[in-house]
Amino acid sequence: MSDGAKAGPVVLTGALLVTQDARRRVVRGDLRIEGGRFTHVGPDAPRTGAEVVDATVFAAVPGFVNTHGHVAMSLLRGIADERDLSGFLKTLFAVDARRVEKDVEVGAAAGIAEMLLGGTTSFLDLYYHEDAVARAVDRLGIRGFLGWAVLDPELTTQKGPPLDNARAFIGRWKDHPRVTPLAAPQGVYVCSKETWLGARALAEETRTLCHFHLAETRREVHAHEAKTGKRPVMWLDEIGFLGPGMIGAHGVWLTRREIEILGTRGVGVAHCPSSNLKLAVGGVCPVVELQGAGVRVGIGTDSVASNNSLSMLREMHVAGLLQKHHRWDPGALPAQTLLDMATIEGAHLLGRSQDLGSLEVGKRADFSLFRLDHPTLVPARPEAIVSHLAYSAEGGAIDSVYVDGECVVRGRTLTRASWEEIRRDAEREADPLWKARPPGASAPGTEPPR
Amino acid sequence: MSDGAKAGPVVLTGALLVTQDARRRVVRGDLRIEGGRFTHVGPDAPRTGAEVVDATVFAAVPGFVNTHGHVAMSLLRGIADERDLSGFLKTLFAVDARRVEKDVEVGAAAGIAEMLLGGTTSFLDLYYHEDAVARAVDRLGIRGFLGWAVLDPELTTQKGPPLDNARAFIGRWKDHPRVTPLAAPQGVYVCSKETWLGARALAEETRTLCHFHLAETRREVHAHEAKTGKRPVMWLDEIGFLGPGMIGAHGVWLTRREIEILGTRGVGVAHCPSSNLKLAVGGVCPVVELQGAGVRVGIGTDSVASNNSLSMLREMHVAGLLQKHHRWDPGALPAQTLLDMATIEGAHLLGRSQDLGSLEVGKRADFSLFRLDHPTLVPARPEAIVSHLAYSAEGGAIDSVYVDGECVVRGRTLTRASWEEIRRDAEREADPLWKARPPGASAPGTEPPR
Repeated sequence: MSDGAKAGPVVLTGALLVTQDARRRVVRGDLRIEGGRFTHVGPDAPRTGAEVVDATVFAAVPGFVNTHGHVAMSLLRGIADERDLSGFLKTLFAVDARRVEKDVEVGAAAGIAEMLLGGTTSFLDLYYHEDAVARAVDRLGIRGFLGWAVLDPELTTQKGPPLDNARAFIGRWKDHPRVTPLAAPQGVYVCSKETWLGARALAEETRTLCHFHLAETRREVHAHEAKTGKRPVMWLDEIGFLGPGMIGAHGVWLTRREIEILGTRGVGVAHCPSSNLKLAVGGVCPVVELQGAGVRVGIGTDSVASNNSLSMLREMHVAGLLQKHHRWDPGALPAQTLLDMATIEGAHLLGRSQDLGSLEVGKRADFSLFRLDHPTLVPARPEAIVSHLAYSAEGGAIDSVYVDGECVVRGRTLTRASWEEIRRDAEREADPLWKARPPGASAPGTEPPR
Repeated sequence: MSDGAKAGPVVLTGALLVTQDARRRVVRGDLRIEGGRFTHVGPDAPRTGAEVVDATVFAAVPGFVNTHGHVAMSLLRGIADERDLSGFLKTLFAVDARRVEKDVEVGAAAGIAEMLLGGTTSFLDLYYHEDAVARAVDRLGIRGFLGWAVLDPELTTQKGPPLDNARAFIGRWKDHPRVTPLAAPQGVYVCSKETWLGARALAEETRTLCHFHLAETRREVHAHEAKTGKRPVMWLDEIGFLGPGMIGAHGVWLTRREIEILGTRGVGVAHCPSSNLKLAVGGVCPVVELQGAGVRVGIGTDSVASNNSLSMLREMHVAGLLQKHHRWDPGALPAQTLLDMATIEGAHLLGRSQDLGSLEVGKRADFSLFRLDHPTLVPARPEAIVSHLAYSAEGGAIDSVYVDGECVVRGRTLTRASWEEIRRDAEREADPLWKARPPGASAPGTEPPR
């Protein structure tokens, strides 16, 4: 098993560098990678002692940062289509109750493989059994920000109090170079004030992030308002939960005042357009207003049970289309902003903009090589490459993916593991889960014929 | 150059057959192809005299029918992002004025290659210089329904009256096995009553289809109402234009009464969600209401200048998300309906449901083989395959594509032409067109840095 930090220097020459630096430069040039980091970005990299690779057929693009998902649900793609969140969760909870660490690890491996092959090098997760996900992250070479699901002890099927479990999980993985453990309060519907503040205290004590679902559906917002007299963001602010390092997923049903509070408190938002649209949550995440209020907004795929894809390329496209449509403004979320959200803004959200999210000297070498001769990137003119990434490129254009300077995908093939083995395991472990679907939870193929 | 109709019989064994027949059966079985048509669909095909190919790793899916586009614009991907239709057209008209038959043919070849590699086997086109497109169709082996753009003689840059040009084009290509020529009135904004009725008379006389833009933007509808006192559909009906074999593209801004008229007259609609959303036309094609009124609705990509992709897989996904979101109904346009629109409904729209759109004995062998072990199709359970096709599969999953029983894509490679040559020609011909962009028409990569 290779390791980018230990490997010798590599120089990729003549690539189209989509740097995503402060000036958003797109230039022809070289990348020199040493000790897992970029030591040269631009023309005429020193080649001393380095393995030199001709990269003129490629665009080098920062690895995508997927800011919300549940990767282990990859065994459940298509299991609960065509229903709203409550119907979706009814099926999912019935299936979840059957899950064990083994199938979580197998599911995580399948999802991580899909993400790596799609150019994602970092992801933020929220699930149970995160040790199993961490092992898959360790094995396949991606970068995982893994949130242990925290909810009220009387509502969970976890063994032991969720907050204690999260604390122990953080303790076990905090020193791993590519695993960043954290606590993840599931949402206002299953977390009391004590649980939210316990998660916050844990994050402060362990200096970790905190990730949670936020204002995804009208029902959630209205139920919380009926119970507490406050909308979720107002209430979370009042109890003293909100602050930097907090990342809310979805953020669909937000008032102007709530947006302002998120901005003031330094809270980030993970926008998940495909999932929101498919579950028909009705509203639209106010991305433009959030950005206007200084809120960092990343893009998340959510899980394949609701999306049904882990492609950040698809998600940029859908995010752009949705805001343009919603605002009757074709200039809303232009291609450059979409690529920012999928790379450097995601890195900011994770508190890692100092070493992730762009091709710059000193940053970790997390990036993908897109074939400029792929049909979805023609014409491959430098002035159109950002547009192509945001609006047309497919995963099939991605030849290689690097994390920490290590080539974890080469020639569209995983280097650390066998996709065929991962896939076979996934199909086997999916079987009992699909059989655990409750009655009436039909997938499309089982609908009565017309 | 091979030809399916002339090749010997082939039997593909053990595939997952997504038949799209009247019962929408998904079954394991064989396909026997002879004389360009299916002679057996289902278990235990007779193998006598046939080349036998093991297809157990594949799902066989009817070829997609792309019901609206301008394929030769493939050289212009990303050239006019982030603007509304009028701003978009301003750039496009400036560039169009520079186009000649040669770059149209090169652009058509690039677009056809992208479509074939994405599983599209039939497409409906609307453009100038359709002879050049027809030559590319002939060469690459796809099935083209090619509409010659018809507009008022005083508004065109065509040499000679457009209707005469369309008539001549139909005459030249009407006997080609895979080219179906037709007249295509461009829209109410450039066609007088005489032009519309002339196109209709030509279609009747030559027994061809008629394709046109319809109610795409508010501006178009309001301007026509201001000029004639009638909304476009009401006016087209009043002048006696509407009838079977007519296919309107977009159909976004339609009243309930107009929907009813389209249903009564047997007019079809090509729904182009990505293009509508990206140009921020504001409204949403009322797909569910159209279907409820008996209108056949297909899916179209529109051109890569507005979409920016020719992927019918992406377009099914976006079409589903948009209707679910728009209606606050996660059950709107379920996966099966989306796949129907992309296959058999598209065939109906083109008046070819008797021989295209599904895997059935007697129909033409137009289909794709999707790898069931592709990451975007896992878990590849038969009950989930329709969901995967509608919501997650990427073009990279498509291994082979057949038209008329001829394998025109094998192992993701075109069999009749070299992608590398098509691409090089496309990059070369794109250059002067991109340089002809009017001032201020910047592409994303040329925006000032932030």
